[in-house]
Formats: sequence, structure tokens, C-alpha cells
Amino acid sequence: MRFLSFHVSYFWYKVTKKGRSSIIEKITEENKENQVENALVLFISMEKRDEASQRLIKRGIIEIEKITTQLKISNIVIIPFAHLFGQLSTLEFAFESFKEIESILKLKGFSVIRLPFGWFNELEMKAKGHPLSRISRTIE
Amino acid sequence: MRFLSFHVSYFWYKVTKKGRSSIIEKITEENKENQVENALVLFISMEKRDEASQRLIKRGIIEIEKITTQLKISNIVIIPFAHLFGQLSTLEFAFESFKEIESILKLKGFSVIRLPFGWFNELEMKAKGHPLSRISRTIE
Repeated sequence: MRFLSFHVSYFWYKVTKKGRSSIIEKITEENKENQVENALVLFISMEKRDEASQRLIKRGIIEIEKITTQLKISNIVIIPFAHLFGQLSTLEFAFESFKEIESILKLKGFSVIRLPFGWFNELEMKAKGHPLSRISRTIE
Repeated sequence: MRFLSFHVSYFWYKVTKKGRSSIIEKITEENKENQVENALVLFISMEKRDEASQRLIKRGIIEIEKITTQLKISNIVIIPFAHLFGQLSTLEFAFESFKEIESILKLKGFSVIRLPFGWFNELEMKAKGHPLSRISRTIE
């Protein structure tokens, strides 16, 4: 699992068109467009080797929580993102993992926006400019 | 050399504070803040192994040009970016490389904004949502 995070004062997205993925999540009024202020925006890839690890998602959540604690924020945006230079997991594993990450973070009290799987999207964001405003992590 | 690109309808940045880098570029009225419309925003890392390659920057430029040709755009934003999961080059090599990439692209007729080296910055961008709107490349 890899992620690249931006601490943003503003984030907005809107789905545009279906990707070439064999998994295309259903679009509803709820998930076709959304926005949030003061959030941790996570561009996330699930990797091949993650499929064999039982505790990987838990460890990923711990890393995410460390950052939100440092930044004192409770809003999280999860963006499925294939462009982080890793060897990607199956689509099925990635999709299930992103939903699981969303569920766990919500149970922990975070407000979470998860962008729909398999879609292209427009996005707008305003990233802050402090030392922790961009972070990348690899969870192994 | 690695880059992650976003095709944006709008991009703006403003330097905020000095990083912990030993190379801190001088800030002027010219480079402390800028904006552009319809551009290819490149988050770029120079890698350790790039230091040994004579033709690497030329090959990187070819990849960048392929994308700008496909997208029919002539505005480029270069963001020095350490968070692309690679083994980074020296700061000196990275800084010289970014300036060289900027110069070559300008000679080729592109309008280029290069963000100052060694600074944190706020940034705002609106990324398009088509199939080529996010691309990552590793140049070896």
C-alpha cells in the first residue's frame, strides 16, 4: 500500500467518465460529486504484495491516523490512484481494500469521502504549504 | 527521473516558507507566486541513478513532449517533488536538472513555470477528468 497525501484547505471532485477497469462502481447522487474543507487527501495504491498481508490495512490506518493527529484534522478523502510507481494489486483486492479503509476510518470517527472506483474524475484542490502538507508513505 | 502529471485547467502557487534543504533558491517578485491556465503540471523527482546518465534529461523531455502533443498544450509547470517513492539524487543534481529541463522546454517554445527549489508552497489546481489527465512515468 502506498499513499501520497496533501493537506488541503479545500477539495472538490466530480466523476466524468468510466475508466477501462473491469470494476466500475455504481454512481449515485451521493458519490458523483462532493467537496470538503480542511482535509487530508490521500491518493492511494494497493500493491501486489499487499494481497498476502493480513495486517496491512491496519498498519496503513495507523499511519493515516498519525498524520491526521499531527495535522489535527478529521476529514479524509480517499482517491484510488494507480500512478504511484508500485506494482498494483488486482482490481478486486484494491476495491475491497478501499471500502474497508473507508469503513474503519468512519468507525474511528473520521468524516470520509471515498471517490468511486473505476471512474475518471475532475478534481480541484487547494493544498497548504507547511512542512507536513505533502507526505508519501509505503506500508509493507 | 520520475514524474506524475496532471492536466489542469488552472494552477496557482505561492511560496510559503523555506524547507530544510541545503539549497534554497532565491525568491524574487518573478517566482514567489504565479498562475497559469490549461497546463501540464509535472511533479518531478530526480533519482540517484540519473546522476550517471548523460541522455536522461533528453529522454525525459521526449516523454514530456509526447504528453503535451497528445493534450495539445504548450504550458508546463515544473514542481520539484520528493514524494514519488524513488531513491533521490543529490540536491545539487536535482536543482541543476530542473533548471536544465526548464531551459530546454523554453527553447522548444513552451511556456514554463518552475517552482523555486527548496521552498514549501501553497498550491491550487483544477485537474481535468479525461483518460490522460493523470500520467506517471519513470525515465531510466
